[in-house]
Formats: sequence, structure tokens, C-alpha cells
Amino acid sequence: MTSISQNQSEFQEYLKEMNAYREAITLIQWDLRTKIPKKGVEQRSEVVGYLSHKLHQMETSDKMKSFIDALNEQTNDEVLQKTVLECLDTYEKNRKIPDEEFREFVMLQSKSESVWQEAREKSDFGLFQPYLEKLVDFNKKFANYWGYEENIYDALLHNYEPGVTVKTLDQVFPKVRESLTGLLSKIQSSTVKPDSTILNTHFPKQGQKEFAIEILKRMGYDFESGRLDDTIHPFAITLNINDVRITTRYDEQDFRMAVFGTIHEGGHALYEQNISNRLAGTPLASGTSMGIHESQSLFWENFLGRNKVFWDSHYELFKKYAPKHFDNISLHDFYQAVNEVKPSLIRIEADELTYPLHIMVRYELEKALINSEIEVKDLPHLWNEKMQDYLGIKPSNDREGVLQDIHWAGGDFGYFPSYALGYMYAAQFNNKMKDAINMDDVIQSGDFTKIREWLTENIHQYGKMKKPLQIVEDVTGESLNPDYLVSYLTEKYRNIYQF
Amino acid sequence: MTSISQNQSEFQEYLKEMNAYREAITLIQWDLRTKIPKKGVEQRSEVVGYLSHKLHQMETSDKMKSFIDALNEQTNDEVLQKTVLECLDTYEKNRKIPDEEFREFVMLQSKSESVWQEAREKSDFGLFQPYLEKLVDFNKKFANYWGYEENIYDALLHNYEPGVTVKTLDQVFPKVRESLTGLLSKIQSSTVKPDSTILNTHFPKQGQKEFAIEILKRMGYDFESGRLDDTIHPFAITLNINDVRITTRYDEQDFRMAVFGTIHEGGHALYEQNISNRLAGTPLASGTSMGIHESQSLFWENFLGRNKVFWDSHYELFKKYAPKHFDNISLHDFYQAVNEVKPSLIRIEADELTYPLHIMVRYELEKALINSEIEVKDLPHLWNEKMQDYLGIKPSNDREGVLQDIHWAGGDFGYFPSYALGYMYAAQFNNKMKDAINMDDVIQSGDFTKIREWLTENIHQYGKMKKPLQIVEDVTGESLNPDYLVSYLTEKYRNIYQF
Repeated sequence: MTSISQNQSEFQEYLKEMNAYREAITLIQWDLRTKIPKKGVEQRSEVVGYLSHKLHQMETSDKMKSFIDALNEQTNDEVLQKTVLECLDTYEKNRKIPDEEFREFVMLQSKSESVWQEAREKSDFGLFQPYLEKLVDFNKKFANYWGYEENIYDALLHNYEPGVTVKTLDQVFPKVRESLTGLLSKIQSSTVKPDSTILNTHFPKQGQKEFAIEILKRMGYDFESGRLDDTIHPFAITLNINDVRITTRYDEQDFRMAVFGTIHEGGHALYEQNISNRLAGTPLASGTSMGIHESQSLFWENFLGRNKVFWDSHYELFKKYAPKHFDNISLHDFYQAVNEVKPSLIRIEADELTYPLHIMVRYELEKALINSEIEVKDLPHLWNEKMQDYLGIKPSNDREGVLQDIHWAGGDFGYFPSYALGYMYAAQFNNKMKDAINMDDVIQSGDFTKIREWLTENIHQYGKMKKPLQIVEDVTGESLNPDYLVSYLTEKYRNIYQF
Repeated sequence: MTSISQNQSEFQEYLKEMNAYREAITLIQWDLRTKIPKKGVEQRSEVVGYLSHKLHQMETSDKMKSFIDALNEQTNDEVLQKTVLECLDTYEKNRKIPDEEFREFVMLQSKSESVWQEAREKSDFGLFQPYLEKLVDFNKKFANYWGYEENIYDALLHNYEPGVTVKTLDQVFPKVRESLTGLLSKIQSSTVKPDSTILNTHFPKQGQKEFAIEILKRMGYDFESGRLDDTIHPFAITLNINDVRITTRYDEQDFRMAVFGTIHEGGHALYEQNISNRLAGTPLASGTSMGIHESQSLFWENFLGRNKVFWDSHYELFKKYAPKHFDNISLHDFYQAVNEVKPSLIRIEADELTYPLHIMVRYELEKALINSEIEVKDLPHLWNEKMQDYLGIKPSNDREGVLQDIHWAGGDFGYFPSYALGYMYAAQFNNKMKDAINMDDVIQSGDFTKIREWLTENIHQYGKMKKPLQIVEDVTGESLNPDYLVSYLTEKYRNIYQF
């Protein structure tokens, strides 16, 4: 009979192998999105496909199952325990789907993404519809394989926000929605009209980059464990906990893209750079959920980056890197401009107040789809109706409506709620942080170490050792509570719009 | 019984797997040498070690042997035939060494490199000596495992320049050496004294880079299948034949480092970018030997980049990117300066005439070591004596003498001759090319396509389909012949130094 300790050391060797594949795949993905020359892509895609297949095989092998069986509940080592549970979750998620169906789904995914791209360009939902129908069907089937207690959509949510259910969401989302639409109508009837167009001027890339790097350093982003590169669709990516890279895109007519984008991705990266070293090499060395990850990026982007005290104390620094144009814009006008609220059709261009409403539209539709309450063919007009209801504007075509996001085309259902959850978590953390830190003083000082340390102490270090709602409870003493987001936005925009 | 065609398709699947590992490893190496943040290196080294081990296992597996046995001499498909032979060569090279010894050697290699680094910094050969002794012993043992006909050193040469033997080298190297020392003494007694110090002026990196890129484009380097990055020790690297990257280093006080360096690496890259597509994914899709590779880089660097007509027609272009300083340097003085001959102690800083003499020193010493005619402990003074004999100068310490190169520390014996062979091949190719192309016209035109096409037609396309000496014979109609290099150098330097 094999002893626990022998199983344990073999298991750790096995995890190291998996990790080697994972790190190689991640480097390839980073390269594919930042550096690779055009003609090299085709062959590289084969390589990543091959290595991903190897990793998938290891995650779902009989050998993995035997490790899990031998070690589960057989150890007092907390890290090992949770590692085994994490492996079990991945194992079951994958093994419950018949091989043949999984293969079909993977092929459908990549085909669908390219069809979606074409449909989006042509603004023709009809092209994409048959693919989306199949993707929805697969998701329903998979959800049934995985199992759920109350709502079939819960099985999908589990992949992105384990522990959060439709029941939870349906308690908080409508409240947020109603508060935000209420705020929005007050904002729209205010006589105060911040004007973000004053921000549009030629701002050379180099200056934007230097300012963004200065802010990243103040946040505590460690450039000896990371780097900043250019890309088309910005992202943060973890090669290992000592190599967490960020990327950004520069719009020389609108600095907000790169500046707020870098702070956002920097927030994701800080999370991963500060996971405890004892988790290195295990599958726990990663953010615990999409929602908690988004709480970190949104905290830095909005609660710090769009904060009044931040600009009070950083506008002079900003002007050192910025074109002369800004010398003629007062701090007051600048601050108001970066916080202009204006309903828009495209989610990723939305301001911080209307953003959650974009998420509600998507959540309600995908939940209804998975619950077979609506049909794919009805999506375009249902989308437009909801946009009208919540934001008061209506897409004039599918491209600026239902076809704008890649998520569904990639087969990802259950992902969207994370964005809104992350925002609520961020507001809860922000509120709690105030008890420990004089935020205004810290922000004013230009050295944000105390904020970063508080986040590391309370959130970062745990990686996947705690589930998202457990983190929220441990940190704030209560469960998910949308009131903090609502009061934050109410207070902030009441000041800006004077209602 | 398994049919040939079934074996063939399984073999090709197997090669694809190997290729995925190889490409992932190569990307990691590129990243390690260009982009990785400092703290990420340690974990990344583990990943590359793991993937290299997997690749090594596949190259030497029983399964590989069974493919070789089933397919060797069983097919008329030339590419498949040579692929099998290439795999057999790798298989045997590795399998002939007992596992335990190979493991010891790999550990010794990495330890030796770090000891060498320290020894070099302290200029203390004694530190490195015991490691070098073991490395020499391993190489002797391996050479005996691999086998040879006449000289034990031939077994090592085979790894870098298959088909070339000590017999060949000992026919050509002494001739070259005598001719070059003769030329050198004439140059040294000439009253003409080109002065390369006039080239040393502040030349901002950006301008150097733009000029280098312009030349790379004229050479036909395809930026859609490659890219140029910064590094410390410049190299070219092939991810796949549609992704061949080059790197360079900028010295803002000496543009020659980046400009000639980029042309050199560009020459390597052109070789790999232009290998026939039918070899893609096989182990044949690579330069056939170190020597032929070096013939390509040296052809472009010296025969084009240090050519009179090149500067006649490109000095004006150069000055567009260069600082005003060069407006006061005549074309004549500039050309003479980039071709100054001056014996120096460090190989990688040598001019094109004395460079082969540095190689002779190393070749003669390593051949004698492997043949047990000298001992490691005697290397420092033997090195210094040979430098005195061939170049007329003597290192004052080990750092600028025997400790300057990494090759031996990495366990690589038999590699150095490639540099001199490559130079001779380049001269032979250059001579032959003149029959087909009016070189002066082509160089003058600034569009070097015809040169690149000739090289692709005659050399690049074949990858490893032809052995080095076969290429030389097919292209030039004769075997290795040092006379072309000697006459090229004689004619060129007679003009420059007026003797």
C-alpha cells in the first residue's frame, strides 16, 4: 500500500508537470496577444492547442483521480486539502462531460468566434444565430451534467463565482438596478453638465505611458515581477506569481483608455503578485473568482482612479506628462469631465454609474435563455428593449447591440454577473478599508502602499484558499450587500451633479 | 502488422508533439533573454527544464526507435527519409550515453557556467579548472560512445558540422592561418592607418535602430514573420519558419555593435525564414549546420555590410539617421575606419581579418585537449603563447585570455571551427554568386532581393535536407576551399592598406 506521504510527493510532482504546461501555454497566449508576427500565428495556435490538450488530459486522468481519492480528507495540511478539492472540482467539471461532446463544443467555440466576428462586422445577428443556439444548447446540457440545486443557471455561475446563485443575484441586482436608474434620471435632469469632450486632445503615447507607469509604481506594482506591453484588447496575465504582466492600449486622442485601463489591469496584477508564496506552484495560486478579481481592478480604477482626492493631489503630476492643453482646464472641470455620466450603447465604454446596468441586461437575458424562457432568435429585440428600459437609449443595429461582446460567442454563460458582483465587492471593501486607513491622507500622499497592504492582508494572499463569499464575509463581517455600492454612487454623483 | 502509411501518419503525429514542445521551449528561451522580469526567471527555468526533459524523452523513446525501424529505407519520400535519418542521429547521439552520465553532465554544465562566470569576473582560471577538466573528460567519454573513424575530435565536430573532420580542418586551417598572419604583417607595416576611433560618438539608439531596420528590409527580412528586440547577448531564434526573431544590443558610443550585429543576425534569420514550406514541422526545418549558418550571417555582415560599394551607396542613408558628427567624416575615412585591422584580445570584438586567427587558437587547443595531448591546467599559458604567435599580442590575464568565451563552460567542444568554416563557405558562395549576379549593381540599387533569392535558391530552401559539404559542392562545384577567403581578404585589404 502506498503511504499518504508518498502519494503526496508524487501528487506534487504531478502538479509541477501541470504547472509547466500551464506556464508555457500562458506565455504563448501573452506572446500571441502582444508580440507575435502575423504569419507566425497559425503554427503557434497548433502548439497551444496541443499543450492545452496535454494539460486537459492531466487534469482529467485516472491518475489524477487516484491522487484525489488517496489524499482527499486524508491530510491536515490546509494547502494540500484545498489543492485536492480544487483538482477535484476541475476533474469533475471535465469528466462529467462526455469526451465526444467536449470535442464538439471546443470546435464549435472556435468556429463561433469567427462567425461572430463576421456577424458583428456586418451587423447581422442572423449569421450568428444558429451558432449561438448550439452554444446555448451545449451550456444547458453541460449544466445538467454538472448539476445544481435550484436553478440550472447556478451550474454555470459556479464556474466563475462559486457559491453565488441566481437566488443571491435576484435579491441584489434588482435593487441596484432600481437605485441606478433612479440616480440616472436625477443626473439627467440636473443643470450641471460635465463635458468629457474637453479631455479629447492629442496626448502622445510616451507621456501617457510614463504617467501610467508612475501610478502603477505608486500602487505598488512590482516591475521586477512584471512588465507593461502594448496590445489591442488590454489584459493582465499571470505566468507565475513572480511574473504577472499587464498590457494596455493607447488612444492618442483620449488618454482615458490607457490611463484608467492601466490602473484597472494593475489592480488585477497586484492581486496575483501578492498571493502568498506558500501557494506557488499549486492551482490555488490564482485569484479566487472572476468577481473578486474584478473587485480589485475596479477598486483601483474607480474608487482610487476616479476619486476626487486622487485628482486633487495628482492633477499637477498628470500635467507634467500631458500636453499644454490641460493647463487651460481647471481641476474642477477635469474632475467633473472624467466622471461624466452619459448612457451609451457599448458596455466597455460605459461610465462607472451606468456600467452595472449593461450587466443587468446581459444577466437577465442569459439567465432566461438557459432557463428556456426565451429563444435565441428573440435576443436582438429583447436586448434593445432592456437597453431602452434601463438606460433610455436603443441600439440602431445588432453591432452596437447584442453582437458587441465576445463572451457568448466563446460559449461563456454565467460570466457577466462577475462584473457587477466585483463592483459591489469593491464598494464593500472600500467601505471597510476606511476603518483601518485614512484613505484621503494615503491617496493625497501619493504612496498607496497602505492600501495595497490592506488588500494583500485581507484578500490577495489567500489566492483560491477562500471562496469569494467567504472572503467578503471575513473582510466585511457581512455577506454580499449592494447598499455600499449604491451609497457610494449616490454620494459621489450627488456632489458632482448637485442634486 | 502495421502498414508503412499507418506508421508514417503516427510518426508525423509524434513529430508534431515534439514540435509543440520545441516551439514552447524556444519561446521561453526568447522571453528569458529579452522580456522576462527579473524575479520570474527562477520558476521559468524550472518550466524550461521540465519541457526539455519531455522533449528529450520523446527523442530517445522506444517508440521513436520503433518508428525509425519501421520507416528507415522503407519510403521513397525524400523528406520522410531524411527526417527519419535526422531522428536516428539524435536518437543515437542521446541513447549511446548512459542515462546516469547524461544527468551528471547536464548538472555539471549548469554548475560550470556559473563557476566560469565567477572565474571570469575574478580573472582566476584556477577556480574554473577542475570543472573544465571534468567537462573535457565527459566529452572524451561521449566521443568514444558516439564513435569516430580517425580522430576522436571528429565525433564532436559531427554535432556542429557533420561531414567535416580533423583531416579536412588540418588541410585548410594552417593555410588560412599563414596567409592571414602574412597579410597582418603587411598591414602592420603599412603607412596607411585607418582610425576607427572617429566612429565613436554619441549616436542615439532610436536612430541606430531605424537605420538597422531599413537595412534589414533591404536584405529581405520579413517583419511579418519576425521581429527585432533588445537583448544583452544578441542572437537570432526560430520559433517556427514563419516566426524567426532577431535581437540586438545598442551601444550609444559605438553604432557598429547594433548595425553590424543586426545585419549579422538578420543573415541567420533570412536562412531560417526561407526554408521550404514542405519541411515545416519536421526536424529538417532548420539550418543544416553551425558553419553554413555562420556563412549566412558573415556573408551579410562582411561581404555586404563592410563592402566598399555598400558604403558608397549607403553612407548618405546612414547619415540621415546618424548624428551630425558624421557630416565631417568623409566617405573614404568612414569606409577605412569600419575596416580597420587591429589585433585585439577579445574574439567577439575582432575585425574581419584577424577573426579567423582567434578561431585557430581555440581549435588547436581543444583538439589537443580532446586528444589528450595537453592538459587543462596548461591552457592559460598555451592560449597566451598562441595569441602571441598568431596575433602578436598577449593577454595580461585569464579574463581577456582563456576565460573569455562561454563555449567550453557549457561543455561545447567542436563548436569553434564552425565560425571559421562559415567564413570560408561565405567567401566561396560570394565568389560563385558573382557569376549569376552583378553584385555591385545590386548593392548599389539598395534592393538586395536578388542576393537573397540566390541564397534561398541555393542554400536556404534546403534546411537540413543537404549536409554542409554537399551544399558547398552543389553550389560551387568544389569542396571546401580556403583560397576564396584568402583572396577576398588579400584583395580587399591590399586596397585599404595600399601594399
